[in-house]
Amino acid sequence: MSPAGGPQKDIKDYFQVYSLGEANLPNPVDIPNGQYIDPSVRIPLDPFRKISSHKHPIIQDKRTFELAGPRQLIYFQPEQTRAAIVSCGGLCPGINTVIRTLVMQLHYRYGCRDIWGIRYGYQGLRHEAEDSFVRLNPENVSGIQDAGGSILGSSRGHPSCEEMVERLIKHEVQILFTIGGDGTQRGAEEIFDISRKKGYKLSVVGIPKTIDNDIAYVRKSFGYETAVSIAAEAIRSAHNEAVGYRNGISLVKLMGRHSGYIAASATVAAGHANFCLVPEVPFSLYGRGGLLEQLAKRLEERKHAVIVVAEGAGQNLFEDNQRSYDDSGNVKLENIGEYLRHTIVEYFKSTCGINVPLKYIDPSYLIRSAPAGSGDQLFCNKLAGAAAHAAMAGKSGIAIGYWHGCLTHVPFVRLRDYRQMISPGGSLWFNVIEITGQPAQMLAT
Amino acid sequence: MSPAGGPQKDIKDYFQVYSLGEANLPNPVDIPNGQYIDPSVRIPLDPFRKISSHKHPIIQDKRTFELAGPRQLIYFQPEQTRAAIVSCGGLCPGINTVIRTLVMQLHYRYGCRDIWGIRYGYQGLRHEAEDSFVRLNPENVSGIQDAGGSILGSSRGHPSCEEMVERLIKHEVQILFTIGGDGTQRGAEEIFDISRKKGYKLSVVGIPKTIDNDIAYVRKSFGYETAVSIAAEAIRSAHNEAVGYRNGISLVKLMGRHSGYIAASATVAAGHANFCLVPEVPFSLYGRGGLLEQLAKRLEERKHAVIVVAEGAGQNLFEDNQRSYDDSGNVKLENIGEYLRHTIVEYFKSTCGINVPLKYIDPSYLIRSAPAGSGDQLFCNKLAGAAAHAAMAGKSGIAIGYWHGCLTHVPFVRLRDYRQMISPGGSLWFNVIEITGQPAQMLAT
Amino acid sequence: MSPAGGPQKDIKDYFQVYSLGEANLPNPVDIPNGQYIDPSVRIPLDPFRKISSHKHPIIQDKRTFELAGPRQLIYFQPEQTRAAIVSCGGLCPGINTVIRTLVMQLHYRYGCRDIWGIRYGYQGLRHEAEDSFVRLNPENVSGIQDAGGSILGSSRGHPSCEEMVERLIKHEVQILFTIGGDGTQRGAEEIFDISRKKGYKLSVVGIPKTIDNDIAYVRKSFGYETAVSIAAEAIRSAHNEAVGYRNGISLVKLMGRHSGYIAASATVAAGHANFCLVPEVPFSLYGRGGLLEQLAKRLEERKHAVIVVAEGAGQNLFEDNQRSYDDSGNVKLENIGEYLRHTIVEYFKSTCGINVPLKYIDPSYLIRSAPAGSGDQLFCNKLAGAAAHAAMAGKSGIAIGYWHGCLTHVPFVRLRDYRQMISPGGSLWFNVIEITGQPAQMLAT
Amino acid sequence: MSPAGGPQKDIKDYFQVYSLGEANLPNPVDIPNGQYIDPSVRIPLDPFRKISSHKHPIIQDKRTFELAGPRQLIYFQPEQTRAAIVSCGGLCPGINTVIRTLVMQLHYRYGCRDIWGIRYGYQGLRHEAEDSFVRLNPENVSGIQDAGGSILGSSRGHPSCEEMVERLIKHEVQILFTIGGDGTQRGAEEIFDISRKKGYKLSVVGIPKTIDNDIAYVRKSFGYETAVSIAAEAIRSAHNEAVGYRNGISLVKLMGRHSGYIAASATVAAGHANFCLVPEVPFSLYGRGGLLEQLAKRLEERKHAVIVVAEGAGQNLFEDNQRSYDDSGNVKLENIGEYLRHTIVEYFKSTCGINVPLKYIDPSYLIRSAPAGSGDQLFCNKLAGAAAHAAMAGKSGIAIGYWHGCLTHVPFVRLRDYRQMISPGGSLWFNVIEITGQPAQMLAT
Repeated sequence: MSPAGGPQKDIKDYFQVYSLGEANLPNPVDIPNGQYIDPSVRIPLDPFRKISSHKHPIIQDKRTFELAGPRQLIYFQPEQTRAAIVSCGGLCPGINTVIRTLVMQLHYRYGCRDIWGIRYGYQGLRHEAEDSFVRLNPENVSGIQDAGGSILGSSRGHPSCEEMVERLIKHEVQILFTIGGDGTQRGAEEIFDISRKKGYKLSVVGIPKTIDNDIAYVRKSFGYETAVSIAAEAIRSAHNEAVGYRNGISLVKLMGRHSGYIAASATVAAGHANFCLVPEVPFSLYGRGGLLEQLAKRLEERKHAVIVVAEGAGQNLFEDNQRSYDDSGNVKLENIGEYLRHTIVEYFKSTCGINVPLKYIDPSYLIRSAPAGSGDQLFCNKLAGAAAHAAMAGKSGIAIGYWHGCLTHVPFVRLRDYRQMISPGGSLWFNVIEITGQPAQMLAT
Repeated sequence: MSPAGGPQKDIKDYFQVYSLGEANLPNPVDIPNGQYIDPSVRIPLDPFRKISSHKHPIIQDKRTFELAGPRQLIYFQPEQTRAAIVSCGGLCPGINTVIRTLVMQLHYRYGCRDIWGIRYGYQGLRHEAEDSFVRLNPENVSGIQDAGGSILGSSRGHPSCEEMVERLIKHEVQILFTIGGDGTQRGAEEIFDISRKKGYKLSVVGIPKTIDNDIAYVRKSFGYETAVSIAAEAIRSAHNEAVGYRNGISLVKLMGRHSGYIAASATVAAGHANFCLVPEVPFSLYGRGGLLEQLAKRLEERKHAVIVVAEGAGQNLFEDNQRSYDDSGNVKLENIGEYLRHTIVEYFKSTCGINVPLKYIDPSYLIRSAPAGSGDQLFCNKLAGAAAHAAMAGKSGIAIGYWHGCLTHVPFVRLRDYRQMISPGGSLWFNVIEITGQPAQMLAT
Repeated sequence: MSPAGGPQKDIKDYFQVYSLGEANLPNPVDIPNGQYIDPSVRIPLDPFRKISSHKHPIIQDKRTFELAGPRQLIYFQPEQTRAAIVSCGGLCPGINTVIRTLVMQLHYRYGCRDIWGIRYGYQGLRHEAEDSFVRLNPENVSGIQDAGGSILGSSRGHPSCEEMVERLIKHEVQILFTIGGDGTQRGAEEIFDISRKKGYKLSVVGIPKTIDNDIAYVRKSFGYETAVSIAAEAIRSAHNEAVGYRNGISLVKLMGRHSGYIAASATVAAGHANFCLVPEVPFSLYGRGGLLEQLAKRLEERKHAVIVVAEGAGQNLFEDNQRSYDDSGNVKLENIGEYLRHTIVEYFKSTCGINVPLKYIDPSYLIRSAPAGSGDQLFCNKLAGAAAHAAMAGKSGIAIGYWHGCLTHVPFVRLRDYRQMISPGGSLWFNVIEITGQPAQMLAT
Repeated sequence: MSPAGGPQKDIKDYFQVYSLGEANLPNPVDIPNGQYIDPSVRIPLDPFRKISSHKHPIIQDKRTFELAGPRQLIYFQPEQTRAAIVSCGGLCPGINTVIRTLVMQLHYRYGCRDIWGIRYGYQGLRHEAEDSFVRLNPENVSGIQDAGGSILGSSRGHPSCEEMVERLIKHEVQILFTIGGDGTQRGAEEIFDISRKKGYKLSVVGIPKTIDNDIAYVRKSFGYETAVSIAAEAIRSAHNEAVGYRNGISLVKLMGRHSGYIAASATVAAGHANFCLVPEVPFSLYGRGGLLEQLAKRLEERKHAVIVVAEGAGQNLFEDNQRSYDDSGNVKLENIGEYLRHTIVEYFKSTCGINVPLKYIDPSYLIRSAPAGSGDQLFCNKLAGAAAHAAMAGKSGIAIGYWHGCLTHVPFVRLRDYRQMISPGGSLWFNVIEITGQPAQMLAT
């Protein structure tokens, strides 16, 4: 969870944001009391203060983020600006709210009426995807926030960034909003780089989408709260199944390739799971102190158990296997859910001679495709508003970050600093330990 | 959906209910206006009237059901009667409401205070399951109706009925309520038969539990409405996933081993599915008019498709395979969901060279373990009330049926007459055809 | 709950349906297996059979209903027929589903493409309401079933029926679907009568809408199930408020002007209310055995109480007051909710000297405007399908009824036979008594 | 929203926390990796940095908060410590989760087994409230997090703090957790002061409960998110009612006595309201630019309108009225909801001669009594954990605050610094303006 340290620490311009040019047009957005963002006020990467014995606070890290929000002066002439929106990767609650707010803000607040959606993700920027641009306006985005999914559709992978930039130039797109995960934002970074090299003034602004909540400098990503809420419901159901049978075991597989936030938070929110397995905390199956022994103990004592497992957990168990990759370039994970399902059943059959009734529950698509809850509705609104403001002000090559309660501008390049993960020594994992009663470590000795 | 015909048609005592003896004790249940059930009023198996040209109604089937409800005179002395409740088989929304209402009715209305729950289904009636009887009272069933699952737990399979009867006699149980499906009620029938042969006065009253809604003479089973409601939500999510990708396909597998009611009703209720496959309507995969051709057509026209499949659909596709059986004695079905998932992906890859993004969604356990919705709360209340009245009146060997809006007494033996299934010529299937737009037949020519 | 008796009993044509003319066009609706409705099969008003001692069933009431559904031959030429839909009165979950299904059926099944919605109820049929006709087609009704309310809007009251008929003739409307309550269907009856007198061939088919579930020959009206479900949630919340304070009282006011179905069913479904007050069962406030005494007893024993009151309950308490009427011609009821709220607080202050913390909860609009639950989605689908079939077959002057599980055709004139009400001697009220523990009678002696 | 400024600004010990004595017992809480809170790391009141032209960050406010969390050393010997929990004031989603987590943490993590709940708030600390202490343990708090309300009950007002301290001393309570709003925490402050003066070692730790989200230094209070979520649902329903009638107006009254957070956030989350009225932004009814004129304009253009009003909005309209106070000492507000309801109807009748169908919706109790959503489940868990850690470490006289994403210790006295309110120049209000389209100001000129 903590950003990478190292020698860059004292670089003042670590989070420097690129501008397409001087912003010298008055902002048509009518802010009550006219409180536009003051560019000299920034939120530090490390806001905490170390108070020494003589109580002089020491600033240990000078890096600070630019705050997102409406600027007094903007770069683009709204009536003459063409904007486009693309959404990529897996579904996530809130995409439609982001799309809608972008359109509403650009249209009503800035007076920009030339807004387009690109169908089916980056694949819609292929040369041959001719019909992939659809006009967006307040009428056709009305009410879409109440539906899950993405009205634009999505896809995995992308054509060459060179091709995508050509397509954007051909369509005279000046602002591109990229809704997507780390792969998408890497693509956006390359689009930004290529367009700069070509001297084409393109504002590329990313809205990070990661249901796993694992992108750097984005403490909370949109859709994540809703995902936790539905995952918690699934855990409650799993509990009912488990207690319904002698030695009943429910195994709930949740999203989380490298970061187990959904599994951990849903475990705490639901309060019924007995084991929570996440990628950040390796565990053993066999041997003293391993999961199977703990599980056997639990069954003996309470006659049922609920296990929550993030999809990327326990990859240490497959260390010798070959790796393969999907269309978005992500490592294909071994299926820990199916593996546990079979291993557990087999273990109890062979060691205790009992057939444990194990129910395997994988609610992933039901979670991804759900409409955003009200917290995410609010959050998507703010994120999309921030993205619109950044783009109109001529910022480019940035994603909207979230840091200590503030929306920020994060240069694309910085998103690669680290992956946000659960700290095994932090409070979320501590809460998991508390609520499950599982041992802090399940590594066999 | 229509009961078996045949020569028994004119047997007046077709649905004759067995009584343990004369009911001659006044019913302590204080009915407002004292309207106890009039035993001479019955609901016909076939209530419709054929009006000939000269308008004289003809009764074509003389069979009628006894109506369930409180009787003026009862058989058991409530203060001296011991009742037990057992729930078996898969979970289903509403089991806890049935348990709670049984306890509340017996306790408060009849004054029977000697009520027991048997843990983990019929397995709790094994000789060695010594701790399997738990006392039930208004305090420990308070609020359980709000939770899914079964507070008593359940199991599949059972010890010999001989053993179960011995156990019941040993514990001096006089009334046994059996909450379960057709297997459970076959067991209940045998318990009833054995106890009769032994001359032991045991009232056995079944509350049919079948999330598939497939038991004879039970038009609507408890939990079914709730199941449809949650299944419909899953279809809505599946729709979001499908439209989210070019050629996106969502495949939702729902319960329904021999009867596709949940799949069909959820399809109509959700209104987003394009194909609904049920056991009652065989279909082909390949060839002209088969599912795959229809699916390809749909993708070409609309770029996405949602398929709902009942777990027992398409068993004709596996005709040559060997059959195996589970612990409850049910035929193990071939996994049509997994089969379609692979076949569809393979088909589009080999015939069109495209990778269709297929999302496979199986919400079964999330449905089974959900708490009952309000419609089922009401219905479980009535069912359990009817069961309590029947037992106290000394009826035995019956399940509570539901026919043309009335709760009835159905002798166990009759439950084997037929299995309730969707009529391919009836209105539910017609609604499915209408709302999906799928062809009435998908058998390849 | 039981229809009016009397001398008409033996009239064979009691529920005779009017036809605009001979139906001699083939039905384009492709029914699987071709099972169109057989007009000679009818469902009896009284399907029960009285079995005398010698077991010969006696038919006591010869009246039977025509069954709704698709006919082999139809009257209107679909391609040349203009249909219109109007929704009147208060909102109710499911109106949009009814509208959508009517449009989908007429368009896709019958090939009728000339379908109109009338804005804001009967008021849209005023001469001066010029823009009140809006074209309806599958595109603009797509997805509306997921939203509450009515896309057409509604209104109370209406212009003269003469004026409405003129307007319909001027617009060459041949089929009119009227979604509304008893007032609306009385209007529809008059429209039917006038158009007949004028010799104008107009099919008028009503879809009864009554959240109170109080229309004759309609055992369950659409939206009612959803209403009960939301009302039950409100009772659960009310329970939390009540137990949260010493002597806490929650008073939940629900819909039900003359029939307390929502209050009674929600009470049973929620299982937390201690008193349920409905119009059908008068009660006293003061005196021995009156509500206040019972309430005081409950507070003394349990320290909290939840009261559910239907809006039309306790009108006996206002007997001497003058009556006034609303725009739809309904009697304005005295506000029993507000009255109880003040009376209860005052009673405990004056008799016991305590300030009871009373929370008054009126969720009516939240209930009326909710989207239909899945049970109602299914039911609305069937109702609207039945209405479309009836109209295309040339039936007129009828509403779609629901009797012993079957959809029927009920002549408008018959809707005035009686008002459906809870029978104080029947099973629903018995369930209320059981679950609340309230006395069967609370009339002071 | 911004804390009070003034001369104290440079006081280093502004948020100094009181300790009962030296914490020198090892903490039995087994933190994974042993990362106890480092007392020298603090979160600043103002974490932002002003970057001048030469880019040297300036710290403008030296005040910092102590961070909440587990300490390496604790003060109380857990096995010999008696803790008590009291909840006061109005209900709020999450109270039961706070209670449960306190019990679970104290019991399982610290080994403290002597935990009591006080029934019905501070009233349970009256001398005569003899039975008001109930034992709490993991068994009787199991599952309570799934229910709304408070298992301990609540009350308004309190006996003298002197009396409450006597009662606590008599019962040998060493730790008191006070769940409640500003009135409750003022009482807690006085209990803390009196016990100190008496030399009685009592740890008093407050968990701020304010559904209005208006307590100083508590950026987000528990239950608030859930409240917004349910309020947003009510706005969606209100929208259906409004569009359902020509000139339909829905008026939704929400909680918010002095701070309009629920109204504003629910407005943004729901996205259907046209006017949002909060206490922080005064408005006029009559005259050019006043609400009524704006509303008339809206009706003319769109034929319907949804108004959301916080209960404390528009108090400027009642300026000349006398004030009165409730049992908790809060000013009784004028009923703006009822006032608007009548004024709006009257206005349109008198100025335009039309009867606007206005629906008044007050979901307050349905919101307050709801169970916590998953976000609040997580948050309550953290809050209660923090409170338990603080108390065991011997901290006293503090509430748990929430500042820039961190849980903090806030001395009771500081809670009186300011009331948290919406800034009319900040981003939340800006979002409201954007989504409603209402003018930034509605003060008549």
